[in-house]
Amino acid sequence: MNDRFLRACRRLPVDRTPVWFMRQAGRALPEYRAIRERYGLVEITRQPDLCAEVTLQPVRRLGVDAAILFADITLPLIGMGVEVELREGVGPVIAAPLRHAADLDRLAPFDPEEHVAPLLEAIRLIREAATVPLIGFAGAPFTLASYLIEGGPSREFLQVKAFMHGEPDAWQRLMERLTDATIAYLVAQVAAGAQAVQVFDSWVGCLSPSDYRAAVLPHMRRLFAALPVVPAIHFGTNTAGLLEVLAEAGGDVIGVDWRVSLDAAWARIGARAIQGNLDPAAAAGPFEVAQRQAEAILRTAGGRPGHIFNLGHGVLPHTPVDNLRRLVDLVHDAVEVAP
Amino acid sequence: MNDRFLRACRRLPVDRTPVWFMRQAGRALPEYRAIRERYGLVEITRQPDLCAEVTLQPVRRLGVDAAILFADITLPLIGMGVEVELREGVGPVIAAPLRHAADLDRLAPFDPEEHVAPLLEAIRLIREAATVPLIGFAGAPFTLASYLIEGGPSREFLQVKAFMHGEPDAWQRLMERLTDATIAYLVAQVAAGAQAVQVFDSWVGCLSPSDYRAAVLPHMRRLFAALPVVPAIHFGTNTAGLLEVLAEAGGDVIGVDWRVSLDAAWARIGARAIQGNLDPAAAAGPFEVAQRQAEAILRTAGGRPGHIFNLGHGVLPHTPVDNLRRLVDLVHDAVEVAP
Repeated sequence: MNDRFLRACRRLPVDRTPVWFMRQAGRALPEYRAIRERYGLVEITRQPDLCAEVTLQPVRRLGVDAAILFADITLPLIGMGVEVELREGVGPVIAAPLRHAADLDRLAPFDPEEHVAPLLEAIRLIREAATVPLIGFAGAPFTLASYLIEGGPSREFLQVKAFMHGEPDAWQRLMERLTDATIAYLVAQVAAGAQAVQVFDSWVGCLSPSDYRAAVLPHMRRLFAALPVVPAIHFGTNTAGLLEVLAEAGGDVIGVDWRVSLDAAWARIGARAIQGNLDPAAAAGPFEVAQRQAEAILRTAGGRPGHIFNLGHGVLPHTPVDNLRRLVDLVHDAVEVAP
Repeated sequence: MNDRFLRACRRLPVDRTPVWFMRQAGRALPEYRAIRERYGLVEITRQPDLCAEVTLQPVRRLGVDAAILFADITLPLIGMGVEVELREGVGPVIAAPLRHAADLDRLAPFDPEEHVAPLLEAIRLIREAATVPLIGFAGAPFTLASYLIEGGPSREFLQVKAFMHGEPDAWQRLMERLTDATIAYLVAQVAAGAQAVQVFDSWVGCLSPSDYRAAVLPHMRRLFAALPVVPAIHFGTNTAGLLEVLAEAGGDVIGVDWRVSLDAAWARIGARAIQGNLDPAAAAGPFEVAQRQAEAILRTAGGRPGHIFNLGHGVLPHTPVDNLRRLVDLVHDAVEVAP
């Protein structure tokens, strides 16, 4: 078993820097696109064999050091009774966004064994077949709330902020319920065999540090405190101004995007591991650009224990698969010569 | 003449913290909406009387400490022969986006006296009537390039990055030409009477620090070095990971958005003035939220010379005008009791 990913999460020395890619199972892979011609995304997560296959495709194709469970961030919301449409090229669209305190009544409790049993079965299948650790994942409460309230992807997150500021009590209740759901989801994934988890607070970077402290931090602390003892990655984008408070919230590994230099970020999160941080747009560009920037990131990390190479956000669908394969090789080769 | 804004730009002591708002002349004001019922945005910039009136409306209505010239960021592009449509609720849309090196040939040089003479005349009129300093402004080359290449507002800026990485020579030529245009534009504004300038690099926060250094920094250094000696504000959003290199690029004042705490940002930009940084969504919310957050920002600034209170980006159209008026009073009153 290749355990360099898990060792890096714990800041133990590794033979080579571990590397995986957010959205490595996805449209950049032809074998994934072939499956998607016949099956919808949610459909795949409901068929354990298919879900395991899609999860393992990038491990075989790219040689990455970890698999991440194939699922959509909105699955717990669907379990809670929310109607979600995964619109191609857009993302999740929610027909009836949550806009008032009373709308909270529409949310049922999320029960993983009832709502995502096939996904948990997929985890067991993946563990039987995988030669690398399996990362479970969930959306963080704020990011789930932002989908619920905005009704879809957003540029400015004005609706979610209006709710947060205008209905502070309802906001806290909503966050509590989403935190409960996220904890239940991740506990179930670990019980089924996930060896690490990543919490995606993808959109939390729209908040000021003071709003984060008041509206998000207590829930994230509770979440991380409730997780089983496996390495937890705490990821967000646009978080260069939030890094200290994100680290305070929890996570053994902090995932950072490309908008901050890796060493500046590492200095600010303190004694944690760090994951990142190549711009997905650079990874999709001419390989020389990806190579130059990946090498610069590795130089910055300087072979210190606790660096997991990744992109700063998900693989873009138009990324040449060969770029990803060569990036894996580059990361693995580079560390052998690190000081 | 109320000069506390100009004094704060120079980090001189002030009687009260100066305050103005990006997009203070705009849809939040009923008197602006009344004018917009009859005139288009570009039309206003072509009628000196009207442009002066719109520029001065927020000074009268809100009591802010500076006026900012009413114009659209794309005016120099229009002068360069680019067809721009300012679509309501969307922003500038460019019919034929620039996607290849050869497309650069379509760009004519920008000549302020030829292309924006009425705007320069408006500056003279504003100076005759104003009781506060007038800030001229321009979009920064990267942000102009992003409109040109994306064809409109963007969430991920993938096209502009593809151009930057894929056509590095053409990118540098494009940035040179946009830098020339921006310099000419700001020099003309100062010659006409603008007493300070703000350079809006609104979208540059999509870049990694390394891309910024390679693709933007040299042009911004040239730009700031070429400006006449009036205070220059260097503004961007999403820049919490870029602050050191933005300060290195230039500007007497660094404008920061709400995604970073004011004191953390100030420590990182060094001996400069700082402008910001209330979340426009908080300014638009229940006034208690705006008040609490504005007070926290003022406490953080602690009355140190060199703080200009502003939002972290433009006033949102649905902001209650009364919130803005009360924020101005709050900022002015607060500093009297500062240590």
